[in-house]
Amino acid sequence: MADNERKITPISDLGEFKLIEHLTNKNKIINESTEKAIGDDAAVLDYKNKKVVVTTDMLAEGIHFDLTYVPMKHLGYKSIIVNLSDLAAMNAVPEQVTVSLAISSKFSVEALEELYEGIYMACEKYGVDLIGGDTTASLTGLIISVTALGSATEKELVYRNGAKKNDIICVTGDLGGSYMGLHLLEREKNVFKDNPKVQPKLEGYDYILSRILKPEARTDMKKVFIDLGVQPTSMMDISDGLSSEVLHICKQSGVGAKIYEDRIPMDMQTRAMAEELNINPIVAALNGGEDYELLFTLPLADHDKIRNHPDITVIGHITDASEGTFMQLVGGNEVELTAQGWNPLKNKEE
Amino acid sequence: MADNERKITPISDLGEFKLIEHLTNKNKIINESTEKAIGDDAAVLDYKNKKVVVTTDMLAEGIHFDLTYVPMKHLGYKSIIVNLSDLAAMNAVPEQVTVSLAISSKFSVEALEELYEGIYMACEKYGVDLIGGDTTASLTGLIISVTALGSATEKELVYRNGAKKNDIICVTGDLGGSYMGLHLLEREKNVFKDNPKVQPKLEGYDYILSRILKPEARTDMKKVFIDLGVQPTSMMDISDGLSSEVLHICKQSGVGAKIYEDRIPMDMQTRAMAEELNINPIVAALNGGEDYELLFTLPLADHDKIRNHPDITVIGHITDASEGTFMQLVGGNEVELTAQGWNPLKNKEE
Repeated sequence: MADNERKITPISDLGEFKLIEHLTNKNKIINESTEKAIGDDAAVLDYKNKKVVVTTDMLAEGIHFDLTYVPMKHLGYKSIIVNLSDLAAMNAVPEQVTVSLAISSKFSVEALEELYEGIYMACEKYGVDLIGGDTTASLTGLIISVTALGSATEKELVYRNGAKKNDIICVTGDLGGSYMGLHLLEREKNVFKDNPKVQPKLEGYDYILSRILKPEARTDMKKVFIDLGVQPTSMMDISDGLSSEVLHICKQSGVGAKIYEDRIPMDMQTRAMAEELNINPIVAALNGGEDYELLFTLPLADHDKIRNHPDITVIGHITDASEGTFMQLVGGNEVELTAQGWNPLKNKEE
Repeated sequence: MADNERKITPISDLGEFKLIEHLTNKNKIINESTEKAIGDDAAVLDYKNKKVVVTTDMLAEGIHFDLTYVPMKHLGYKSIIVNLSDLAAMNAVPEQVTVSLAISSKFSVEALEELYEGIYMACEKYGVDLIGGDTTASLTGLIISVTALGSATEKELVYRNGAKKNDIICVTGDLGGSYMGLHLLEREKNVFKDNPKVQPKLEGYDYILSRILKPEARTDMKKVFIDLGVQPTSMMDISDGLSSEVLHICKQSGVGAKIYEDRIPMDMQTRAMAEELNINPIVAALNGGEDYELLFTLPLADHDKIRNHPDITVIGHITDASEGTFMQLVGGNEVELTAQGWNPLKNKEE
């Protein structure tokens, strides 16, 4: 989009080696564990006596993002965040990322510079080093593959399989905002298609737009847990929707769960947009995905320690596996949770 | 190809979670350093007091491979090998890989099973654990992104920047075979296009076909170096062609080099195919790429230790930076080496 007024350099002018050099020459290393970053056959890290926590995520054009309304800079930022969110879900400290791109010839060097601006912005904000990657051509579209590495001690690590009966179920922040932000963007895109002269109506929805376009990873929670004197028994990040994540924790921990509709935290903008579009906001929270908040469980005894934290909401409790996984609706009825999580393979394939 | 006679299950029948589960349920873990593999937000590794060596490579359909003649199983195998080759180039021991796929709806579950068969075959042969990944839809084609992790002690590691004046320059195995194998496949593909009833003429070229379709990583050299009592001063793998790699080592080490045309090791099949296609075989070795052999330098004093090793060839020596990087031709003339290495971004983009 921005390329209309800017210089446009075809990628082929640089070639692979020069392109990588061009995009990574401002790279700064901040973590002690990064001994050798970009520039050799591989990077070298020294984690001393800590565990290495590794995760990887791939974002595909037309599936995870639509470049008609997602700026390249935001995309670069988000591609890092979705990985750091997985490290936060392990209670690990993010330290390094590798970034690989498959890019079609429609992209200019300037567009990739913007993408990298976003990547570097996320790296700087989260104290992460860019240590490597690969750049190749693709026949169509843009694919971004990021691997993130982080550290944690044995004691700090939190897996999905430790939830116990009677544990309380908590979430950070609020849910469903990203999904409603996506709906807003889709609506304005369609309006624009019908009449390109109409200005998009995005005012008053800055929060839900930021949720979809510039999400953050809850790496801050590690310190919060320490400060509150709690250690989650299980944890994962909410990337596919609350419903799907509760089921993952229950399956891996061999337990059931009961959550309460009226306790699921949602922002006013999320509710307002849902009403405007005639969508049940709880569907956005349960099945929407991409909120990148944390879902975690704590022993019931820790309830008092977290009760007053403004960023933690108790939404239910762990039950026996035989009791299943249910949500109690406001009226008192119960519905079974299903894994209708955000599924790019199922929804967008034809 | 093979799908013609086999069951074809659309990927959408399974969805993302079940697809990953389906493809990874036979996963076995063999390395002590792998504490937690697939199944949580991230994998957990324990490298104790060793360094972590990390590399990543992306393969794109239509750029790095052509599915009209590359079987899915070979592709899976090769996607792991190209990464292990980078670890071998650091003198590290490969321990883990993550595999991410972007796949269009034209691929069946059975095709992905074949791909994973190749991935597991490489993992088993090289003693590597599959610890994670991501699977997503793509608008067209197949993109494979692999990250590999390995271990090494400080003393074992070999970088690109340690070559010293008078060091001898060595390569493992032989070069140019992969490039000539690719030319053979392209020729037969074109013959097939013109007349689909003609059987491909591949007999007698099994070696160069294996070089392009099923390359191996020289992770065996770490032990060879120990057995011979040598430690390379610099090393990298030959993935973009010898010429480009010699230039990388020289640039990073701040030295020059002189190599000799008549010492560059080439297989008889490579030479025969080059003659058949009227290509100078030295071009295949210098610019062809994808051989995944190792280029390394050793102190001159080590010459006697490696002289009789059947898999190591001395091709030249390191000079002062001011002397440049040259190849002496058979007739005695010298040509400057240029980085015309295999460049998918430059050659295939339009």
